[in-house]
Amino acid sequence: MRSIEEYHHLVNEELKSFQSSLVNKMSLYDPVSYILKLGGKRMRPILTLMATDLFDGNVQDSVKSALGIEVFHNFTLLHDDIMDNAPLRRGKDTVHEKWNVNAAILSGDVMFVQAFTLVTSCKTEYLRAVIDIFNVTAIEVCEGQQLDMDFESREDVSLEEYLEMIRLKTSVLVGCSLELGAVLANASKQDSRFLYDFGMNLGMAFQIKDDLLDVFGDAALFGKQVGGDILANKKTFLLLKALQDANPEQLKELKIWLKINDSERSEEKVIAVTRIFNELKIREKADEIMESYYKKSIAALEQMNIDLSKKDYLKGFADSLMERTY
Amino acid sequence: MRSIEEYHHLVNEELKSFQSSLVNKMSLYDPVSYILKLGGKRMRPILTLMATDLFDGNVQDSVKSALGIEVFHNFTLLHDDIMDNAPLRRGKDTVHEKWNVNAAILSGDVMFVQAFTLVTSCKTEYLRAVIDIFNVTAIEVCEGQQLDMDFESREDVSLEEYLEMIRLKTSVLVGCSLELGAVLANASKQDSRFLYDFGMNLGMAFQIKDDLLDVFGDAALFGKQVGGDILANKKTFLLLKALQDANPEQLKELKIWLKINDSERSEEKVIAVTRIFNELKIREKADEIMESYYKKSIAALEQMNIDLSKKDYLKGFADSLMERTY
Repeated sequence: MRSIEEYHHLVNEELKSFQSSLVNKMSLYDPVSYILKLGGKRMRPILTLMATDLFDGNVQDSVKSALGIEVFHNFTLLHDDIMDNAPLRRGKDTVHEKWNVNAAILSGDVMFVQAFTLVTSCKTEYLRAVIDIFNVTAIEVCEGQQLDMDFESREDVSLEEYLEMIRLKTSVLVGCSLELGAVLANASKQDSRFLYDFGMNLGMAFQIKDDLLDVFGDAALFGKQVGGDILANKKTFLLLKALQDANPEQLKELKIWLKINDSERSEEKVIAVTRIFNELKIREKADEIMESYYKKSIAALEQMNIDLSKKDYLKGFADSLMERTY
Repeated sequence: MRSIEEYHHLVNEELKSFQSSLVNKMSLYDPVSYILKLGGKRMRPILTLMATDLFDGNVQDSVKSALGIEVFHNFTLLHDDIMDNAPLRRGKDTVHEKWNVNAAILSGDVMFVQAFTLVTSCKTEYLRAVIDIFNVTAIEVCEGQQLDMDFESREDVSLEEYLEMIRLKTSVLVGCSLELGAVLANASKQDSRFLYDFGMNLGMAFQIKDDLLDVFGDAALFGKQVGGDILANKKTFLLLKALQDANPEQLKELKIWLKINDSERSEEKVIAVTRIFNELKIREKADEIMESYYKKSIAALEQMNIDLSKKDYLKGFADSLMERTY
């Protein structure tokens, strides 16, 4: 197995070559180049290469498909930003702000085709399996975004619905990234699915961690304002669990704060809601469910037919993702 | 060879089964179902089935991929309507009017994945060729829409640029529909490309005919207001050719009319611009270029290694498309 840095380097080299193919083309491609330059951890393509390596495949043969997953992920960010009316992405103007909504729609569309083209740039013998995994996942990601948008205007979102939303919107793509790499290394169908389950459950744990970090994270490490989700009344695991577990008095207070969007009372709101979270032990409850997903992912890992040293590598990777930074 | 009606029936049956798969799913799929119900000639999937029949393939094996082309086409209409801010499509509310822009973006995206899924629902032996044709075409269609949008704010669009725009935006998909059907019938690479050229050039001729019909069409037959393109100052072949060929006086008059958007002077504008078109023999010039594309399509047809009777069938089909209705 290579180090994460090595996989990252391979992804970056392929990305560079993709970016240079966009130079001097029509303006349609400028937003594609722009959003891919904004950076990111490139976690998904790294997972694809890691999975190929895990089954002794040729990572160089997987790197185009891996990049396709990253391009697809960035396409979803581009279109989601329009729908969420987001002004910033990684501290820079979003595409629809820098250009306009039409450019963002159409550049997103062409980026989607480029993602398909890259993902399917694999040996023909794996094409059917690759397409089947990718198409199902792409549909699920759209469904997840739909649920997320629906939730904004709904008062009665259940925890189960929330978990299904994050599964579709983010976790399945983590699973898909890994399964893709396994398929491209000719892994058995069973092992590929176990690896998908490992990734999908890890993605769930990671998303709940993201919710936790918003409230309990170290602001400096995290790079975002603490309590941003609270101020946006975002229906996170924490808020939904609090609404579910609150006594009548706490529920009343929570609902009052949800109606207060006065920017002068921001600090007060974050402190008050966090206090209710603490009273209800929401952090511990989130830790618990995070832990249960983590355990599911490790259980899937255990069932795989690979060397123990490789299982340890994946477990180490999962642990590093789960490491507490709060 | 079957009749057009038989191909149409096969497409409709597959569409029905696709539509029923969308029933009782989340609201994301409502716009997909809606736009596919608005109708249309289903020309593209009919061409795919026709091409499969032409090379003695099994049309039933091609019908899912054929429907994929129709779903893709409707996806482009859905997103184009947002970008063009169009209120109506086939006399009914556009998706972004009936729902909202966000729903139109996201339902379009999932429809795009459904199109890929359907197009790639073919025998695995043809998968690589199918993907290659489709991905290239899908990228070209996005590029064509970009050019079309760019042209709106440009004063200096040349005829050559216009022809390249319609080639990308509409003609390549006609070629692709046919080539796809040929590939699925295991036709030779050469014949498949000739069939693509036949379709692409026929698509060019058909698009120019569309421009002609707007001004010189029989309103009753055509179903649209005569002169709609003139009133919208749309940069059609007719207008661009007129701007190119006009003498200084005609040019001055044309440019004055382009600035007049007063709805009370609509009739006057259509009459005046049509008069200038007539003075410049624009109709004859458009006929001429249409004829040249028609000839190119017939030349490609002649080179194909198929029975004469089948060539006659295709020529008959081309002639029916080109039939004058003005």
